[in-house]
Amino acid sequence: MRPNIRKIMVSTSGGDAPGLNAVIRALVKRAILGYGWEVVGSTAAYNGVMADPMDLIPLDMERVSGLLIQGGTILGTTNRGGPFEFPVQGTDGQWTTEDRSEDLIKRIRSLEVDAVVSIGGEGSQAISQKLFEKGLPIVGVPKTIDNDLSATDMTFGFQTAVETATEAVDKLHTTAASHNRVMILEVMGRDAGWIALASGIAGGADVILIPEIPYDIAKVVERVTTRQRGGIKFSIVVVAEGAYPKEGVPFAQESNIVGRRQPILGGVGRWLVKQIQEATGHETRVTVLGHLQRGGVPCPPDRILATQFGVAAADLVAQGKFGHMVALQNQNIVGVPLTEAIRQYKYVNLDHHLVHTARGLGVCLGD
Amino acid sequence: MRPNIRKIMVSTSGGDAPGLNAVIRALVKRAILGYGWEVVGSTAAYNGVMADPMDLIPLDMERVSGLLIQGGTILGTTNRGGPFEFPVQGTDGQWTTEDRSEDLIKRIRSLEVDAVVSIGGEGSQAISQKLFEKGLPIVGVPKTIDNDLSATDMTFGFQTAVETATEAVDKLHTTAASHNRVMILEVMGRDAGWIALASGIAGGADVILIPEIPYDIAKVVERVTTRQRGGIKFSIVVVAEGAYPKEGVPFAQESNIVGRRQPILGGVGRWLVKQIQEATGHETRVTVLGHLQRGGVPCPPDRILATQFGVAAADLVAQGKFGHMVALQNQNIVGVPLTEAIRQYKYVNLDHHLVHTARGLGVCLGD
Amino acid sequence: MRPNIRKIMVSTSGGDAPGLNAVIRALVKRAILGYGWEVVGSTAAYNGVMADPMDLIPLDMERVSGLLIQGGTILGTTNRGGPFEFPVQGTDGQWTTEDRSEDLIKRIRSLEVDAVVSIGGEGSQAISQKLFEKGLPIVGVPKTIDNDLSATDMTFGFQTAVETATEAVDKLHTTAASHNRVMILEVMGRDAGWIALASGIAGGADVILIPEIPYDIAKVVERVTTRQRGGIKFSIVVVAEGAYPKEGVPFAQESNIVGRRQPILGGVGRWLVKQIQEATGHETRVTVLGHLQRGGVPCPPDRILATQFGVAAADLVAQGKFGHMVALQNQNIVGVPLTEAIRQYKYVNLDHHLVHTARGLGVCLGD
Amino acid sequence: MRPNIRKIMVSTSGGDAPGLNAVIRALVKRAILGYGWEVVGSTAAYNGVMADPMDLIPLDMERVSGLLIQGGTILGTTNRGGPFEFPVQGTDGQWTTEDRSEDLIKRIRSLEVDAVVSIGGEGSQAISQKLFEKGLPIVGVPKTIDNDLSATDMTFGFQTAVETATEAVDKLHTTAASHNRVMILEVMGRDAGWIALASGIAGGADVILIPEIPYDIAKVVERVTTRQRGGIKFSIVVVAEGAYPKEGVPFAQESNIVGRRQPILGGVGRWLVKQIQEATGHETRVTVLGHLQRGGVPCPPDRILATQFGVAAADLVAQGKFGHMVALQNQNIVGVPLTEAIRQYKYVNLDHHLVHTARGLGVCLGD
Repeated sequence: MRPNIRKIMVSTSGGDAPGLNAVIRALVKRAILGYGWEVVGSTAAYNGVMADPMDLIPLDMERVSGLLIQGGTILGTTNRGGPFEFPVQGTDGQWTTEDRSEDLIKRIRSLEVDAVVSIGGEGSQAISQKLFEKGLPIVGVPKTIDNDLSATDMTFGFQTAVETATEAVDKLHTTAASHNRVMILEVMGRDAGWIALASGIAGGADVILIPEIPYDIAKVVERVTTRQRGGIKFSIVVVAEGAYPKEGVPFAQESNIVGRRQPILGGVGRWLVKQIQEATGHETRVTVLGHLQRGGVPCPPDRILATQFGVAAADLVAQGKFGHMVALQNQNIVGVPLTEAIRQYKYVNLDHHLVHTARGLGVCLGD
Repeated sequence: MRPNIRKIMVSTSGGDAPGLNAVIRALVKRAILGYGWEVVGSTAAYNGVMADPMDLIPLDMERVSGLLIQGGTILGTTNRGGPFEFPVQGTDGQWTTEDRSEDLIKRIRSLEVDAVVSIGGEGSQAISQKLFEKGLPIVGVPKTIDNDLSATDMTFGFQTAVETATEAVDKLHTTAASHNRVMILEVMGRDAGWIALASGIAGGADVILIPEIPYDIAKVVERVTTRQRGGIKFSIVVVAEGAYPKEGVPFAQESNIVGRRQPILGGVGRWLVKQIQEATGHETRVTVLGHLQRGGVPCPPDRILATQFGVAAADLVAQGKFGHMVALQNQNIVGVPLTEAIRQYKYVNLDHHLVHTARGLGVCLGD
Repeated sequence: MRPNIRKIMVSTSGGDAPGLNAVIRALVKRAILGYGWEVVGSTAAYNGVMADPMDLIPLDMERVSGLLIQGGTILGTTNRGGPFEFPVQGTDGQWTTEDRSEDLIKRIRSLEVDAVVSIGGEGSQAISQKLFEKGLPIVGVPKTIDNDLSATDMTFGFQTAVETATEAVDKLHTTAASHNRVMILEVMGRDAGWIALASGIAGGADVILIPEIPYDIAKVVERVTTRQRGGIKFSIVVVAEGAYPKEGVPFAQESNIVGRRQPILGGVGRWLVKQIQEATGHETRVTVLGHLQRGGVPCPPDRILATQFGVAAADLVAQGKFGHMVALQNQNIVGVPLTEAIRQYKYVNLDHHLVHTARGLGVCLGD
Repeated sequence: MRPNIRKIMVSTSGGDAPGLNAVIRALVKRAILGYGWEVVGSTAAYNGVMADPMDLIPLDMERVSGLLIQGGTILGTTNRGGPFEFPVQGTDGQWTTEDRSEDLIKRIRSLEVDAVVSIGGEGSQAISQKLFEKGLPIVGVPKTIDNDLSATDMTFGFQTAVETATEAVDKLHTTAASHNRVMILEVMGRDAGWIALASGIAGGADVILIPEIPYDIAKVVERVTTRQRGGIKFSIVVVAEGAYPKEGVPFAQESNIVGRRQPILGGVGRWLVKQIQEATGHETRVTVLGHLQRGGVPCPPDRILATQFGVAAADLVAQGKFGHMVALQNQNIVGVPLTEAIRQYKYVNLDHHLVHTARGLGVCLGD
């Protein structure tokens, strides 16, 4: 049975990703034009609702005009804990956290909001699932710039990040070639190497290092020196921030994701500079791309995907498919249960055709 | 049983598409590094082989260096007929065509070429199939910037074309808004509206017209005037070159593809300018994007796909899967029989999620 | 003596140019932060003031936030006549024009506006001068995307237009080379060839045709065929829309600017296609860049120049230098009398170093 | 009296700058087409000539085709000392330097090279002057991406660097605004703040710190907190790598350029993060742009300037104006004596209109 919806709320959370505003715009357009709903935005994830007075933004057609090409999110995000671990300051001044989820749901209901759309990463979707279990009619929109969610073939923001990284490789390429240098580009990817793999192939890197393949530094060094002996005095290395060597890094620690290690202190890029320079005598430089990968105008495919997600999220609400998340699967937009979506990471599988392609080009993957 | 390959030949044909050179580069790298083959390129499709003396380009690692980011094709293409309709000049000076396919195959064999990779559009793949039937060991790489081949989820060049078209919409947008104009962008798409649909959604167009949906000009005019009455004095129209009105264009002719009509004389964009201006009194302008969509540096996704295709084409040769074409299917690269691949167009289906998304945003599709 | 200013008005007029919004933003910031003034914008040139009720936009810090990178103008422009030739409809329904300048000045004074900043082209600055002579305290900001004003070394928008045109040449280059074509790009420039000359040099064109040098079509044809004989089977031609042949175009008419001719019917680009194709048998194509050159995000140098102009315009008002226009002269921003600035076109001088550079590269300039 | 030239040599040296290849291309075209000379390139500055056998590249029309849009330099550069401080290894294995300038000149003469064009920075031009004094007919082309040479209004590469930096500011802007952060971008500029000033204005930075204005960290902190109190919870800081605080950095050392200090250990950007975060409690992040500013395709103005320089350098040779360097002065290309050109830095003058513009916008310059 279709739910009776008159008003929905939307919020964004977690790190920046190009396309967040495009999702909001599409959702609002679909909600108003297609369903005649009212839309309100909560600022800084759910903090807008938790504030006194509440900090809410009415979202009408005029407010979302122009958002398609605008990076960031007009709703903002937060680093504070979610409603289940809400930070509170005791009378002694100390900060602790408490479960304020009931209060959140109560406040949302007091707004006569009939459904919530939560745009956010894996952590946010886990919170969404728990709120859903407590009775909040909620629909999720996945957001991970690393494209590391198995439930969806692609997430928005990823392709813009790959474009930014590829443009950086292009820029480093000419300098490396002219100046006989090893140029290292450190890109995002704590756990999954998709950005490194895609931008490395797109930029024609000689070495690509990803978290899924602990690298043998000797292999990397060998590649650089082999090229040099062949008369090519430069090399381009693209490394995911979460890549780590097979051995010899005592300070790497297990992460809370099973099998994940903390990035190397000071960054894997800097560590590689030292290793390669010492082993080869070759002038080696690193560029850490960092936040540049999360910002700016979304590229066309990200605008399209984000728009599809926004429209589909409104559709899920209209269909009463709460506790579901929109996803791209085999070129179609579908709804998947949040329970399936969360904690199902999509790592680079060594059988993946991109890995095969990289090897086919003679790219060193560190193994 | 794996064939015994020592030397392969590659050629490109048909209209330009960003990524052609990237295919060549990946093919050559895979052939040399992975299989130890020699590679030679025939210029201007098979014309290089048909010339006396033959016009062939040896393709080694150095020759393909830098091709990844270079538009066009170093092998060139031709507008002349293929080997089955080879143009010959009679003693009376008149041009006729004759079947020179046997001669072509003989010449290729005389080069001790063990397999041929043909990168080209639907017409070229049909020729490849016929040459394969005559005994030539041949592998195809699909090339259609319109992305209108059902055998593959995506073709290289398409995303660069969409990017170019989207950037054009972005540029027109600010002028349209400032100057209260209807701005029309005519993009490629004789039979399929993928570029118009994708760039229209990515650019936030108000009207998108595609060949698959014959448009009612009254609906287009209504959209423009409705916006105007709502205080928004500009509109953006993206139209595929092959779009045509439901009625009232006497000079439209059936094309050789069943159901296809010839584009409107002078271009559909110009025709729309006249129609909209007359009906609304609104200042209306058209920009015909044309060749700009086929040129330039391939965008990262096109570089990646072209590279995957190049590597996979070499793999098909190595596996002896002749008479097959590489294709992207559900995120994987596969080989499909040429017989299945040719003449299976992929039109915009009205059930496609992109159509749904456009409607969900309130975009007028002319129906 | 410094004038006592409390409130200023700003308006934009004429064709679009990237940087208009950046001027408005800088002007408002300087006016508010530096001088404590109130700023109001008149929409559609002076039409906002002439409307009943007046259509004015209060411009504060929040309103101009984000304008730096936004193409177009939030104040809009108009094609209607200025206050001296204001269109009025008689009781018989016929449109005539009358001088409404006194009314305009009266209305502006009724707003307690102490000074006006008019951002516009040569025509607008001529109106500004006449209004100034009638007592309106007015300061001008030059706007011509063609960079054809002698009073200033550079105008904003020009460099973005050159960038757009150069990117187009880059895209055409690879297709031309791969497909053995003559590719023609028609760019803006009715009277002055700066855009064609700059983008032609920046894009590596083989032929550049500008209005200042009536071309000999035989010379153009010769260049194409010479290249072909030398084994280079493609050529790139960049032509300003106002370029015309030395002889043989009967329908060219004298323009209202002395010595200027109307562009060739159907466009000079199309005319060249026919001429070159007939004379050489070479496949020749034209792309008309049109409105794409006026839109989009201003490039960094245009953002900087527009910002300098906006700040300087406020400074001129503060200094009471009315009847002056801001200008870039020898890397400094100065104020020049409007009387000097108007009707002093800056054509491409044949002694200019850019002309020398083009010839030095072997570019055919049609003479 | 015009010299009798038949053959010239060209070399590039120092750090990368977009446009180096464009200079080489224009020089070669002008030399061959305009003067009928032969051109040879020495690799890695003069190292190509000093090698046994000499490592020289013949430069003809085909070799320079396509170089206009290619970053880097096909001639390469070196970090080794010039001919006056040539590194030599003694019999004891120790490296020392000796004056090999006579040997260099002898070797160049043995090639029947009639003139040398040296493209390089201030250090290279000083070497050129000394070689000129020793009788080598030499012409210089200035190269400094920092645009800090007083003899020329502009150097190629600078505008591309500004574009890259501005695009980075644009990307950081949306993330900063969405996520309430202070975002710092560290750009090039050891001694001169032109890149920071230009990209800061073009990107709409709130704080711009340059070496010419030692900053008061309290002023920077005040700007961030003032914005925050006004409800704007983010700030953008662009800082030149050579900027330093007025006081409190004990490890800053005097540089060999009088008045210059060494950059702060670990980089000024990181230092600022710590200072701002501690003082404001605001989440603060730094991005170090580094090598990305030196690479990639030159933007149109840099292509044009580099091309003008290349043509003009050949002209200086033809005119026998040895010991001179090409320069842009007041929109014209001229030759200036090397003696005037070297060691005349162009710092940001506090009276410069860009400084005035920044202040006019309310930008904090740290003072």
